[in-house]
Amino acid sequence: MKLAHDWLKAPEYYQPGLPRDYVAARYGIDPQEIAKLGSAENPLGPSPAAVAAVTEAVANMDLYASWTAEPLRAKLAETYPAASDNPNSYICGAGETELISLIIRTFCSPGGKIQMPGPCFPIYHLFAEAEGRTPVLVHEATDRTTMALDPDAYIAAITLETEVIFITNPHSPSGTWLTEADVRRIIEAAASTDTGVNNVTNNANNSGALVVLDEAYVHYAGPNDPSNTDHKNGYIHLAAEYDNLIVLRTFSKAFGLAGLRVGFGVASQPIIDALLAVKPTWNMGQLQLAGGIAALDDTAHTSATVDLITDSRAYIQQRFDTELDRFRMVPNTRSNFFLIEIIDDSISSPKAFEGLLERGVIVKDGAISFRGLDDKFLRSDVSHRQNMDHLIDALKELP
Amino acid sequence: MKLAHDWLKAPEYYQPGLPRDYVAARYGIDPQEIAKLGSAENPLGPSPAAVAAVTEAVANMDLYASWTAEPLRAKLAETYPAASDNPNSYICGAGETELISLIIRTFCSPGGKIQMPGPCFPIYHLFAEAEGRTPVLVHEATDRTTMALDPDAYIAAITLETEVIFITNPHSPSGTWLTEADVRRIIEAAASTDTGVNNVTNNANNSGALVVLDEAYVHYAGPNDPSNTDHKNGYIHLAAEYDNLIVLRTFSKAFGLAGLRVGFGVASQPIIDALLAVKPTWNMGQLQLAGGIAALDDTAHTSATVDLITDSRAYIQQRFDTELDRFRMVPNTRSNFFLIEIIDDSISSPKAFEGLLERGVIVKDGAISFRGLDDKFLRSDVSHRQNMDHLIDALKELP
Repeated sequence: MKLAHDWLKAPEYYQPGLPRDYVAARYGIDPQEIAKLGSAENPLGPSPAAVAAVTEAVANMDLYASWTAEPLRAKLAETYPAASDNPNSYICGAGETELISLIIRTFCSPGGKIQMPGPCFPIYHLFAEAEGRTPVLVHEATDRTTMALDPDAYIAAITLETEVIFITNPHSPSGTWLTEADVRRIIEAAASTDTGVNNVTNNANNSGALVVLDEAYVHYAGPNDPSNTDHKNGYIHLAAEYDNLIVLRTFSKAFGLAGLRVGFGVASQPIIDALLAVKPTWNMGQLQLAGGIAALDDTAHTSATVDLITDSRAYIQQRFDTELDRFRMVPNTRSNFFLIEIIDDSISSPKAFEGLLERGVIVKDGAISFRGLDDKFLRSDVSHRQNMDHLIDALKELP
Repeated sequence: MKLAHDWLKAPEYYQPGLPRDYVAARYGIDPQEIAKLGSAENPLGPSPAAVAAVTEAVANMDLYASWTAEPLRAKLAETYPAASDNPNSYICGAGETELISLIIRTFCSPGGKIQMPGPCFPIYHLFAEAEGRTPVLVHEATDRTTMALDPDAYIAAITLETEVIFITNPHSPSGTWLTEADVRRIIEAAASTDTGVNNVTNNANNSGALVVLDEAYVHYAGPNDPSNTDHKNGYIHLAAEYDNLIVLRTFSKAFGLAGLRVGFGVASQPIIDALLAVKPTWNMGQLQLAGGIAALDDTAHTSATVDLITDSRAYIQQRFDTELDRFRMVPNTRSNFFLIEIIDDSISSPKAFEGLLERGVIVKDGAISFRGLDDKFLRSDVSHRQNMDHLIDALKELP
């Protein structure tokens, strides 16, 4: 047979964080003794309200759910009126990952260019390549000390051929934060790529690039501006203002539903209507709708999760700062993960990764998990203090 | 922004069968009194074994499932050894619909041609168009009396530019059956499109077209050859023989899990490996894996479902044949649905569809649901005898 495009002849697969059972079997460790810090899951487990709602919905598993996830869209419109109070402004997916794939297929032409930070969440470039689109990783926009995104350098990289632009806030993999003013500047720069241009190759119909603002980890970020606690929810309200923006959220993190597969996007209705046409008709099942709806009201679980992450994040930073000299925690993360920079020249990230596994600690090896991150970085989740202790102890033991 | 291709400027959406609540509200009918015959769901509900397994798995909703659905693949390899006893020969999806999308994106180049019967399951052509590929509906291969697929005409339509070919068995929307010899002829004709050809536009790398054998409804078909009850499972064993074949199955029908979203494909490993690269990484959640695994062993539920469909199918055929003269049941369906041809010149299918809705019977209007089926056909599910009675009574009442 023919493959749709050449990349598929030797594709690269995403490497998820390792599961407990695999590490337990390979190293002969009790699974309960393993600190699982490579998948950014919720240390408090799934939302109890979602558990109850899903359990009740199991009886309806024989019936197709609304193909547009209507009840969940309605609940989202109630929950996020600052973004849109119209259910038709929302699209639901089997996790944010499915929505990322849909966006690439809907708003970038075959071979077209998709801009993203380098390094970034690897799903962006892997899905672009899988669909025959061209990822453009802007490595020069990464400040190598803070690992934060430099908005000026990122804006400078936008060209007339850019069709889709990803930004992640909190940023990945550093967890750093972009101001609202900077996010607005990126969106506005993306919108203006059409100004007076009609003769650009492969881009004749362009009326600006679509910006994807991925807010997967936004619950953990605290108030946008610590002096103004009104805006606790990131920049989802910008979806009401800009026609070239879609904001993505996931239920996999603060709601603890990574294994259910629920995510959503909010944008102007023409964007959503186009995405619905590309979406596999019944991408969502009854249980995903029921769990998502219930989780949105479970603020007790979300708050407890955020409190735990906030406490442990300060704790682990303090331990790194005072106890470790071969490793540095890249500061200013506002997410539930952080980068560890290996200061010791004699240790590479694959060696450290393996050494941590042997000691029952699963993290991500930057050299494997992030394109453009060299072999001196690991990424770890923020989790219970005892898991943080386990990580610190294991790092200290590394030869 | 730019859309990936022009079809998205005015897309067509799939029209699912109407839900009970919508019809109840619109016509003031008790939802329990509605015969829901437009979605081919399982009249006996979900597999009880799947219900139990999913309920137990709810506690793990916080954890990402294996991105390849490893435990479900292993169970499939145990269950269908005639197709392959190697888990790596299987791919799992959120229903067959997701797999259809993946196949189109992986094995057909942008703009490339995908052959399908006309009429057919509309997801085939809608998903092709949504991804900027070109559906080729072979209307001349439909025998207008039997509504069956004519394999000779279908083979004759294959060209050097054909990249993917769909066949459905039992056929859709007629429910008729293709012999194994005919299916083999189609696969072999598809494989030979490369013979000695190197100069075909847009097809330089072609080494034959991929055939997708969609066996969504195969449980209802009975033994392939009624004189040989060994092969009850359709032609899934052909996946072991042909490199250019993928066989698709769903858990939405005989297993009663339409609202869970589980389907699978089995093919040679290069086909599966390419599809895995295009698949959104975590397309399956914990509950889908648990439910799918349990359902495969729930032969009591499947058998009871098949027995009910088999009984009701004979019953409804007999009632049509003896009691109705304005409507004809297109004979020889081996599925859980059948076509109703409207013989009465004064009634169109939209009018009959609406008249049935008013009487609490939901079917599919051929004019809306199937491209190339004119306005003289409805499609109805096979269901409990009382639902079949409801349909007959309502048809008799139509003005």
